[in-house]
Amino acid sequence: MKPSPTAAICLIGDELLSGRTRDINTQTIARYLAPFGIPVKEVRIVPDEQDRIVDAVNTLRAAYNNDYTTGGIGPTHDDITADAIAAAFGVGIGEHPEAAALLAARYEEMGTEFTPARRRMARVPEGASLIENRVSGAPGFQTGNVFTLAGVPKIVEGMLDDIGHRLESGAVVQSITVRGAGLREGDLAEALAALSEQYSDVSIGSYPWFQTLQDHGVALIARGTDADALDQIRRDLDGLVRAQGVEPEHLQGEA
Amino acid sequence: MKPSPTAAICLIGDELLSGRTRDINTQTIARYLAPFGIPVKEVRIVPDEQDRIVDAVNTLRAAYNNDYTTGGIGPTHDDITADAIAAAFGVGIGEHPEAAALLAARYEEMGTEFTPARRRMARVPEGASLIENRVSGAPGFQTGNVFTLAGVPKIVEGMLDDIGHRLESGAVVQSITVRGAGLREGDLAEALAALSEQYSDVSIGSYPWFQTLQDHGVALIARGTDADALDQIRRDLDGLVRAQGVEPEHLQGEA
Repeated sequence: MKPSPTAAICLIGDELLSGRTRDINTQTIARYLAPFGIPVKEVRIVPDEQDRIVDAVNTLRAAYNNDYTTGGIGPTHDDITADAIAAAFGVGIGEHPEAAALLAARYEEMGTEFTPARRRMARVPEGASLIENRVSGAPGFQTGNVFTLAGVPKIVEGMLDDIGHRLESGAVVQSITVRGAGLREGDLAEALAALSEQYSDVSIGSYPWFQTLQDHGVALIARGTDADALDQIRRDLDGLVRAQGVEPEHLQGEA
Repeated sequence: MKPSPTAAICLIGDELLSGRTRDINTQTIARYLAPFGIPVKEVRIVPDEQDRIVDAVNTLRAAYNNDYTTGGIGPTHDDITADAIAAAFGVGIGEHPEAAALLAARYEEMGTEFTPARRRMARVPEGASLIENRVSGAPGFQTGNVFTLAGVPKIVEGMLDDIGHRLESGAVVQSITVRGAGLREGDLAEALAALSEQYSDVSIGSYPWFQTLQDHGVALIARGTDADALDQIRRDLDGLVRAQGVEPEHLQGEA
């Protein structure tokens, strides 16, 4: 059996080291990953210097299978993260057609000139895929196991929504998720404990979410390597949720 | 000319990695060191595991001449920082008579039993000197170039008062901040890149903020040791912002 997934974060920015800005993104990312069973095991803060970014990213991605960078992907001269990630992976960097197109469309809509500086934000390492940015348009990107996000906390939050569905492929253990909207953990705790004892090779977790008074519930995640056992557990979890008068929802790709 | 002093911080604690606690100590330490001309160049957050602490501390103290750890010096079984620092330096650990005496006096004054667990807080690496803790009594300690502080932010603040007199100052980095409300980074990127090339001894950074659709903008920060150059750059930055039809705002005291 392969080891469990682990995560690391490399925060990039002189402003974090100088004390001008206090980091919030570590907490945001750690809390986002927790329900996926992916613990953050190390964080580094490095300055806006390519060598330092390359060293940190290469060390972290060798040690942890899920890595995040924040900061340095804007349009100004001190935004060097895309180049640093390309250097870390030893690949080239070029304009991503989809990124260029969505930036062009966004600036046209805003009536703002799509300058060469803004166009820099379409540059990503070769082979990288885009991470959607619904807050301000300019995308992040995924290069191998490294997710490169913005530095602005609101944008980081938004980008994470486009990451969860990718974590299964990086995750070693398969998982199934059954969600019960409107439920609370206490509603299910005892039945869940019994189920957990019944399947000793599968880890079953309960993760509440609470967005608003209307939008809350519990996500039940089972992780294991035996697909047949996971299928059976999904039916069992469906039964637990239905017993509370709620129709279960299924999600793929939450590890 | 001796190389300028530099600092690094190793934050120790599972609670920081899990997102349960948000770090404040980096900002406190960085702001304390700025007037001494000692910039923080790297931060690492590591879990409560001795090997991980030893690795991080040894890497950082080899690279930066002024190193700080926070956390893990309390009385419980998971407070392992003193042992980890001793291991990092390859020295023994023992009860520091002065630390034991001041703890004994403090607990007697409080009418609280000085238990073996509390007595653990008097253990420091061989050769270390104490760092006074006026907030809660249990001291930090200095081992070579490594200052080991508490994790609780108020205690960290207090301990720093007993550190300044031990530091060798470097050239003090000053900063000026020019803010352009309503601007976006792309509006300024090209002019800023040109300005940045013009002043090679000053680092110029661009930091967008984005609170709401109404409250957003760009903060331009120049950092350097030459006050005259910074004055000139402030005028140049004012010019860039005014060229966008926005009246620049000046901020003091942001490093």
